[in-house]
Amino acid sequence: MPRKQPGLSRRGIAVPASPIRRLVPYANKAKAEGAEIYHLNIGQPDIETPKEMIDAYRSFHDKVLAYGPSDGLPVFREAIADYWREWDVKIAPDEVIVTTGGSEAILFALLATCDPGDEVLVPEPFYTNYLGFSTAASVKVVPVPASVENGFRLPAKGEFTKRITARTRGIMFSNPGNPTGVVYSAAEVGVLGDLAREHGLYLYADEVYREFVYDGARFESVFHLKDLDEQVIVLDSVSKRFSACGARVGCLVTRNRELLDSCLRFGQARLCPPTVDQLAAAAAYKAPKSYLTEVLEEYGKRRDVLHDCLSEIPGVTAFKPAGAFYTVAKLPVADAEKFAIWLLTDFRLEGKTVMVAPTAGFYATEGSGLDEVRIAYVLNSTHLKDAIRILAAGLAAYPG
Amino acid sequence: MPRKQPGLSRRGIAVPASPIRRLVPYANKAKAEGAEIYHLNIGQPDIETPKEMIDAYRSFHDKVLAYGPSDGLPVFREAIADYWREWDVKIAPDEVIVTTGGSEAILFALLATCDPGDEVLVPEPFYTNYLGFSTAASVKVVPVPASVENGFRLPAKGEFTKRITARTRGIMFSNPGNPTGVVYSAAEVGVLGDLAREHGLYLYADEVYREFVYDGARFESVFHLKDLDEQVIVLDSVSKRFSACGARVGCLVTRNRELLDSCLRFGQARLCPPTVDQLAAAAAYKAPKSYLTEVLEEYGKRRDVLHDCLSEIPGVTAFKPAGAFYTVAKLPVADAEKFAIWLLTDFRLEGKTVMVAPTAGFYATEGSGLDEVRIAYVLNSTHLKDAIRILAAGLAAYPG
Repeated sequence: MPRKQPGLSRRGIAVPASPIRRLVPYANKAKAEGAEIYHLNIGQPDIETPKEMIDAYRSFHDKVLAYGPSDGLPVFREAIADYWREWDVKIAPDEVIVTTGGSEAILFALLATCDPGDEVLVPEPFYTNYLGFSTAASVKVVPVPASVENGFRLPAKGEFTKRITARTRGIMFSNPGNPTGVVYSAAEVGVLGDLAREHGLYLYADEVYREFVYDGARFESVFHLKDLDEQVIVLDSVSKRFSACGARVGCLVTRNRELLDSCLRFGQARLCPPTVDQLAAAAAYKAPKSYLTEVLEEYGKRRDVLHDCLSEIPGVTAFKPAGAFYTVAKLPVADAEKFAIWLLTDFRLEGKTVMVAPTAGFYATEGSGLDEVRIAYVLNSTHLKDAIRILAAGLAAYPG
Repeated sequence: MPRKQPGLSRRGIAVPASPIRRLVPYANKAKAEGAEIYHLNIGQPDIETPKEMIDAYRSFHDKVLAYGPSDGLPVFREAIADYWREWDVKIAPDEVIVTTGGSEAILFALLATCDPGDEVLVPEPFYTNYLGFSTAASVKVVPVPASVENGFRLPAKGEFTKRITARTRGIMFSNPGNPTGVVYSAAEVGVLGDLAREHGLYLYADEVYREFVYDGARFESVFHLKDLDEQVIVLDSVSKRFSACGARVGCLVTRNRELLDSCLRFGQARLCPPTVDQLAAAAAYKAPKSYLTEVLEEYGKRRDVLHDCLSEIPGVTAFKPAGAFYTVAKLPVADAEKFAIWLLTDFRLEGKTVMVAPTAGFYATEGSGLDEVRIAYVLNSTHLKDAIRILAAGLAAYPG
């Protein structure tokens, strides 16, 4: 009799490989062969982390590297409360649950509010990892399509309402948008608030790119919505704000006490977020204001460079992003993933090539985004220009 | 019409507060009132972290604190492979998925192998956080009772088989045992192997206390089991080995390629484990061998001190643990949780009191362990003696 093998779970099979990271083996092979690669696939900025943060690691001197509280170190929770004061939002330290990256904030929010089979509406394209965490939590992502043609504005209210079922628990979205770069107006955030009020939904608001808004546009937080204290959950991270992706420190902020308590209990199971990284993240908030101003200015320049360069490539449609540091570009290829792989396996210009993230994985609608890529403008303008020059040459040479 | 409020999910309500941590608010209040508290509730050792590890934080000097690979930094994965060689187990670096603490290894293992409603057999009492992660994953923990009277040995094979259903996916256990301190013999580990082979089950083996085995006993890893490469999953952590609980670095080790790939995809959703902590954890493995020998010797002494002191308290039944750094003590009280709270709220001896973890939360069987507490012998012998003296005085004075 053949041995019975247990096999994987259905979700273990279904959980998607990240479109941002799944081509890494091709990139590693290209590097091993001597190629230089511009990474436009991942939101890993080349911007320096604040010196205050790096110094915090360097000055750690405890004899015992101990657990912290499950809801986070008070010093970091207080830094978050102080930070919100600057946005004219009153948040108490005990309304903050520190998480291991913004990632864990997404997971806790889903677990505390959704059971297996429940549904979450998500404007599409969306941050691809919502799909990974939804699969982990056995929650269904119900996409509400936006499109590059109208600049990825919030879909009309009716597009949401017609998808609401008895299992719908909330709306998850990033604003400023990843991968779209869209920044929702106060009116659009208001529509999300109306939907939440009228249908008893949670708003899971991923605001990690809050600072990154260009052309003097105003960012509107869900915390400015009235009368939604029990339903608003803000997912946040220090990764992008302070170019500190490797710290894995984020937080979940809500005024819903029951929800805070539930997240604390999920948090107790994993004991605590990393201790030294929290100390470092708290120190980052002490960096001078000029740090973020300068970073914003730099990203603004890069956005212009990127958009100018992309606009010159025949057949490419690119929306000029108003925020975050991504754009979605429609390429004149049938299958952007095949093209992205080909760039890594077959194409070199002066020994260099480019890595981009195929956008199909940022959609839950089968067959959407096949000819699109997400480009992160996380490299300095010189590298960015060179990278887009190589992308253009790749498109011209592509036999696919 | 009253506003519709979404409310929490069933699992968000059900997820248990950790018995190790849920009395923390009482402890904080006692401290605020000036009490000194001996923490026997949590496995937070007072042993110094290896200097090599602390120095790694102190010498971090990257300009940009960047993401690492989703499956972990090569330097740490290689350290784990080298480490296993010393146990005569051949593990390749790519059979290691680095996780954010051993905690995340538990979560990934459950997600990749179980769907909502699936069942996992767990010898009881068990590490309480298995219950938290099972609730998160909507997996049912099916307890297989062991008892303090027979030293928490592995329950008989028939006790497992009679609980196996079509939904049973595997057996989760810690060896050496938390909270029991039991160390399974080669024969007992063999029984677990037989169950896995005969019923097509996974073995989720939490071996984080592998080094902590006393009286010259031999630790038997599941990796020594033959012909189970596809079914053995080892959950590991640097937290206890190197007294580095705040680092949040652990790993999942398996030879099952499909499973590794699934865990990598769950890992991609959360991007990566913390970067600097992984560098520090890799450095810990470079500490001289004498570090762990000395630590083991120290815990052995503490165990003797604890057991001697507990044995002298009238009405207390304590099993002498053979491994890890916990023991379960049966107290002459009806409700150990009420007693543990009373120690924090009402009892002081010379301004001091003791915090212990009520054991009920380490059981899934309703009504079990109500008169037991878990005691972690993580304090030096002087403090430990004093703590048990206070516990004894508390028991004598307890009006409950």
